[in-house]
Amino acid sequence: MKNIYLDYSATTPVDKEVLDTFTKVNLEYIGNPNSLHKLGLESKKLMDASIKQISNILGVLEDEVIFTSGASESNNLAIFGVVNKYPNRGRHIITTKLEHSSVLEAVKYLETKGYVIDYVKLDKNGLVDLDDLERLLSKDTVLVSICHVNSEIGIKQDINAIGKIIKKYPTTIFHVDGTQAVGKINIDLSNVDLYSLSAHKFYGLKGCGLLIKKDNIEIDPIIHGGKSQTNYRSGTPALSLIVATSKALRLIYNDLDKKYDYVLELNEYLKNKLKNNTNIIINSNEVCIPHILNISIPGIKPETMLHALEEENIFISTKTACSKDNSDSLSLTALGYDHEISGYSIRISLSYKTTYEEIDRFVSVLDEKIKELKF
Amino acid sequence: MKNIYLDYSATTPVDKEVLDTFTKVNLEYIGNPNSLHKLGLESKKLMDASIKQISNILGVLEDEVIFTSGASESNNLAIFGVVNKYPNRGRHIITTKLEHSSVLEAVKYLETKGYVIDYVKLDKNGLVDLDDLERLLSKDTVLVSICHVNSEIGIKQDINAIGKIIKKYPTTIFHVDGTQAVGKINIDLSNVDLYSLSAHKFYGLKGCGLLIKKDNIEIDPIIHGGKSQTNYRSGTPALSLIVATSKALRLIYNDLDKKYDYVLELNEYLKNKLKNNTNIIINSNEVCIPHILNISIPGIKPETMLHALEEENIFISTKTACSKDNSDSLSLTALGYDHEISGYSIRISLSYKTTYEEIDRFVSVLDEKIKELKF
Repeated sequence: MKNIYLDYSATTPVDKEVLDTFTKVNLEYIGNPNSLHKLGLESKKLMDASIKQISNILGVLEDEVIFTSGASESNNLAIFGVVNKYPNRGRHIITTKLEHSSVLEAVKYLETKGYVIDYVKLDKNGLVDLDDLERLLSKDTVLVSICHVNSEIGIKQDINAIGKIIKKYPTTIFHVDGTQAVGKINIDLSNVDLYSLSAHKFYGLKGCGLLIKKDNIEIDPIIHGGKSQTNYRSGTPALSLIVATSKALRLIYNDLDKKYDYVLELNEYLKNKLKNNTNIIINSNEVCIPHILNISIPGIKPETMLHALEEENIFISTKTACSKDNSDSLSLTALGYDHEISGYSIRISLSYKTTYEEIDRFVSVLDEKIKELKF
Repeated sequence: MKNIYLDYSATTPVDKEVLDTFTKVNLEYIGNPNSLHKLGLESKKLMDASIKQISNILGVLEDEVIFTSGASESNNLAIFGVVNKYPNRGRHIITTKLEHSSVLEAVKYLETKGYVIDYVKLDKNGLVDLDDLERLLSKDTVLVSICHVNSEIGIKQDINAIGKIIKKYPTTIFHVDGTQAVGKINIDLSNVDLYSLSAHKFYGLKGCGLLIKKDNIEIDPIIHGGKSQTNYRSGTPALSLIVATSKALRLIYNDLDKKYDYVLELNEYLKNKLKNNTNIIINSNEVCIPHILNISIPGIKPETMLHALEEENIFISTKTACSKDNSDSLSLTALGYDHEISGYSIRISLSYKTTYEEIDRFVSVLDEKIKELKF
């Protein structure tokens, strides 16, 4: 029985070409990119070529690219980097209840240090209420951190519209967690100051992420040390991870529109099939990316369904991989759903690699399992 | 002309077996270790087996192992983790002038936040003056951070003797940067609270390090988020890097004593040959590990010699890979050497893979280059 993997938003299987690149770099480039000799310089040159490629794809400057160990580090570097750099700018932070734990826990930690955190209102679809954002913003607001695409439901924010409002406050910095957006949609960073992403969400390797930091923004490092790839993040550059990340980004942005359209059709196909089962409530809405479909099956515990499906080698998520407790979905609660919905949600995440056959089998197994478990 | 790599303390070429393990894990374990389904649990199980292996080799408990992106992160996590956890314990930190930049820059940053940093006196060989340490310690000392093996000269501290003194102050935490020690010498962590290491220094992959945190010590994370591998460091565990690190550690500690003895002989052989050239001053002394040999050639700029040697495909370092400026060696200056020595030092770092033939050729090329450059 072949695996049907529908958990691409938790992590993606690495692309073989990316893995080959990783291996090749390890064997052929043994110098530390920080070393002054030829072997070091060869490594440095390869790293610079990767940075150039990444900056071209994302439409940013080369020195706006900071390599990290992943999106959790990028999010923490953005948040602590800003507040530590500007301790006197004000102690007010705005974010949403749709954020990943690495943003939510970081701002909660800052709350214990005297920062005031406001969670901006959301409309019925989960979009940031721009009027409320304007109302909350003040000269004390040092940082606004909002995810581009929510990981549980797939809500895509209009980061351009949000960024334009924030620009009215020149001392407020705008961070966007793009972990669930990069590799799935086109990215326009014109109105964003800081942007996080992680390679393992787009068929790259785990252990490498990026923080895009616009040239005119300053941050303090959270990993201090010698000047390495940049002044903002010390440590021996993980050259092979870096080159592999640049390769993964290039591969995923090849024909992205075609991949997107395919996933969009697949998502419609899946939703239409699911609508036939009255036990299922579809939570993802028209502002969500098609790669994430969140549904609730009231009365069946998400963990129970997850394990029932895995018996048939079908893999989905309850909430996100990074929140392990049995509490209700924070994202659905933030949208105003009661326990009936938010306590019974599962996340199906799709890829351009997902086939119609997989969807057919998934839906038929899901229907069977609902029958078994419902009564 | 074959490369003669004598820069193993900057970084080591990855062991092919380690790279194979990395590839295999990537292809066979696609689940996020944080996921609840079977694919996630299989990944989690493999991660746990790696943790068990590492904890056995290092003689610590399994829950004392924290994976990071490398030693720079580990050092910063140790330092900021302690001071952020205990803001009311006192604002005094003791360290040495022999530390890596990721320790020195971290404590310098804390100095700007009101911490008082003391650099403990060193004896003529560079060993920590234990009397001075006792004199500096007080109930305000929240942290002592001392490297096990200095990266430029190779000075090995007696971390047991130091740890025993620090234990008299129950609220003082002892961090040791073990980056240049692990994989070269046997490690006894009985009297240490926190210990940093990095896989790429022992033929593992770049992008993975460890912080050993004893069970009775608490720290704040610097990367906040969901509970992941531990509560102290969030982010999707980089499973393949973790398994590869455990493999690299196992391989290097196979027959370590034999490897050590071989490098010791090689070091003696090299020193004896170098002594024939009166232009060369040997800076490494009897408390240094044999893997690092620091020498000065007064009158010849280190960068000039580095480039002269690389023309012959021989690779050495000026100071460490992570300090790029042209200033004098901090470590040699700390030992009281004047510019004549500390401005003209180069580091030769050896491996159990280094051959006598490589040493012979290195010394004969070095002699030639000194003749060429000296006049």
